[in-house]
Amino acid sequence: MNEVEELVVDLGERSYQILVGGGLIENGGTLIKPLIRHQHSIVITDQHLKNSGHLDALTSSLGNVGIEHHPFVLPPGEQTKSLEMFAELADGILQLGIERGTSIIALGGGVIGDLAGFLGATLLRGLDVIQLPTTLLAQVDSSVGGKTGINSTHGKNLIGSFHQPKLVLADIGVLDSLPARQLRAGYAEVLKYGLINRPGFFDWLEQKGQAIIAGDTDARRYAVIESCRAKAEIVEEDERESGRRALLNLGHTFGHALETMTGYGQELLHGEAVAIGMVLAFKLSASRGHCPQDDVHRVVNHLKTVDLPTSARTLQTEITADAVIAAMSRDKKVEAGTPRFVLTEGIGRAFAGVQIERAELEAFLQSELD
Amino acid sequence: MNEVEELVVDLGERSYQILVGGGLIENGGTLIKPLIRHQHSIVITDQHLKNSGHLDALTSSLGNVGIEHHPFVLPPGEQTKSLEMFAELADGILQLGIERGTSIIALGGGVIGDLAGFLGATLLRGLDVIQLPTTLLAQVDSSVGGKTGINSTHGKNLIGSFHQPKLVLADIGVLDSLPARQLRAGYAEVLKYGLINRPGFFDWLEQKGQAIIAGDTDARRYAVIESCRAKAEIVEEDERESGRRALLNLGHTFGHALETMTGYGQELLHGEAVAIGMVLAFKLSASRGHCPQDDVHRVVNHLKTVDLPTSARTLQTEITADAVIAAMSRDKKVEAGTPRFVLTEGIGRAFAGVQIERAELEAFLQSELD
Repeated sequence: MNEVEELVVDLGERSYQILVGGGLIENGGTLIKPLIRHQHSIVITDQHLKNSGHLDALTSSLGNVGIEHHPFVLPPGEQTKSLEMFAELADGILQLGIERGTSIIALGGGVIGDLAGFLGATLLRGLDVIQLPTTLLAQVDSSVGGKTGINSTHGKNLIGSFHQPKLVLADIGVLDSLPARQLRAGYAEVLKYGLINRPGFFDWLEQKGQAIIAGDTDARRYAVIESCRAKAEIVEEDERESGRRALLNLGHTFGHALETMTGYGQELLHGEAVAIGMVLAFKLSASRGHCPQDDVHRVVNHLKTVDLPTSARTLQTEITADAVIAAMSRDKKVEAGTPRFVLTEGIGRAFAGVQIERAELEAFLQSELD
Repeated sequence: MNEVEELVVDLGERSYQILVGGGLIENGGTLIKPLIRHQHSIVITDQHLKNSGHLDALTSSLGNVGIEHHPFVLPPGEQTKSLEMFAELADGILQLGIERGTSIIALGGGVIGDLAGFLGATLLRGLDVIQLPTTLLAQVDSSVGGKTGINSTHGKNLIGSFHQPKLVLADIGVLDSLPARQLRAGYAEVLKYGLINRPGFFDWLEQKGQAIIAGDTDARRYAVIESCRAKAEIVEEDERESGRRALLNLGHTFGHALETMTGYGQELLHGEAVAIGMVLAFKLSASRGHCPQDDVHRVVNHLKTVDLPTSARTLQTEITADAVIAAMSRDKKVEAGTPRFVLTEGIGRAFAGVQIERAELEAFLQSELD
């Protein structure tokens, strides 16, 4: 195994370890074995991970340490995270005659992690889940913090629950085979942690961002562990999102609206929407006098150096202020019909819970979209 | 309102109040109002409660205090607690554009409470749930303790989660319209608390059991609050069933097997199965020398005075030792393929976690079933 960084998410009896480094999938069995209650497990993954050989690497390592494993290989893509697929898998897994000591092992990106996590949260009222995130986005965001869920026809992640994993293995070796656009999109979430409350991390990312995208292993390992640390610190304070955890939505209120309008497809990936959303949050903050204009420029300039979008104007779909506002009012984080924004006093100084009058929002969005 | 007893289930930030008394449904709005975060709610109930006027009583009282309420009236019966109904309701509720402050109000028996509770556990990753149990079984068992869930084609309650309610209103007035057989079946769970660890309560039930069945309001109120107190004390110590909570399964390992074999229908209600299961647990305990024979007789005699079954021999379905053992090995509480039994040293002295060799179990069951 290559160099491995370690972090503990401290949530009392729900605490768990995150390992970040190379070779974690092919050594998965050895790492998982001490945590597993019974010697059988369910592996949930997608066809990409099977084709790339990562599934075989994992199941070999499980076999080597005597962990039985039943794999479910799902079609890749967001449509897999559906109530229908949940029902089909629940049935397929229960048919195997599992017990409460059976573990669910999720090998994949956010779709696999969220769906497998929700199965773990609900089958027999809770099974142990081990996350092996295989995209940068999943490694720095969805695999950490215990949010699990599936999509409804009425919106993304509308059905789910909080269920912390027992272990997260973020193998940075798999990032080498990730398409460049997906890698950049995941990088937007890395950047988010610098912008929320880690100005020193943002400084470092300004230096190392391009190297991370290009494949610098040491820089990737540090970027992933530091992102996990940033998220863990916030989750430790507010596991179930009643307060501070809302900071993690920096860029997401605008971002989700843009994703809704572009259909959650290839036109705009989640991380790209977050990148534009973070720029809008900084600009809105500047327009209200919260944030220096210089910080807006630094954010925009850095996003450009890593080829991430910085404006909704370049999208093919026509984005109007009215449509953005309508989409935001359907966000699941709405309170009393009004979205709450994460704004900022500058790089590393975000604050949550801001309500904005419709007239101000409309004027701001019109100026940004025209 | 008539006399009302009150109890707090102490689970830290998940603590909640249980009220037991008359008139709680028609005063529901007033009681619920202080707990509700936003002024809209979803009411989940079944056709029986609509026909009996209880739904109207509740919605009037909600309306009187300005709580918006959208009712879903479901078909009565166990088949309602399905993954298909969950999916249909999730869709129907999300379509209403709910927010995290929306409450779910469950008005019904265990089927409604478990299904509504699971919707509350999973929609938007967790909504507040208020339970208004309308059967004796639901008032003393399923509405307290936070277990929620639905059935799978592979077994009952195989999909679910722990999600504590915000308030339980057990209106004993509704018990007057409950069919006598259902009331008696619910009484088996009341009796269970005496048998587990409340010998004084069992003594009192020996005096008052028939009055409770016949309709004595004071006795019913005390029986319900004392049952809730007994369950709450165990749940407070072991919310997620990693230890002591297993005591609540007294009679249930045998009982579930009998229910499986009789098809979960009118031949054998859940409480009736538990009654027979408790007798078997006492007899098995006596056969191993744990429990005095006199205590077995007291239990059997008391069950007879309230017209509950005490043996599987009287069932229409043929019950064989082999079939019981096979059904038990598929129970979701199995560990490493072996069911764990709750046995007893006598009335009020149950203990959990006992493994029994197949040969012993087979011999015991054969002697009880022949």
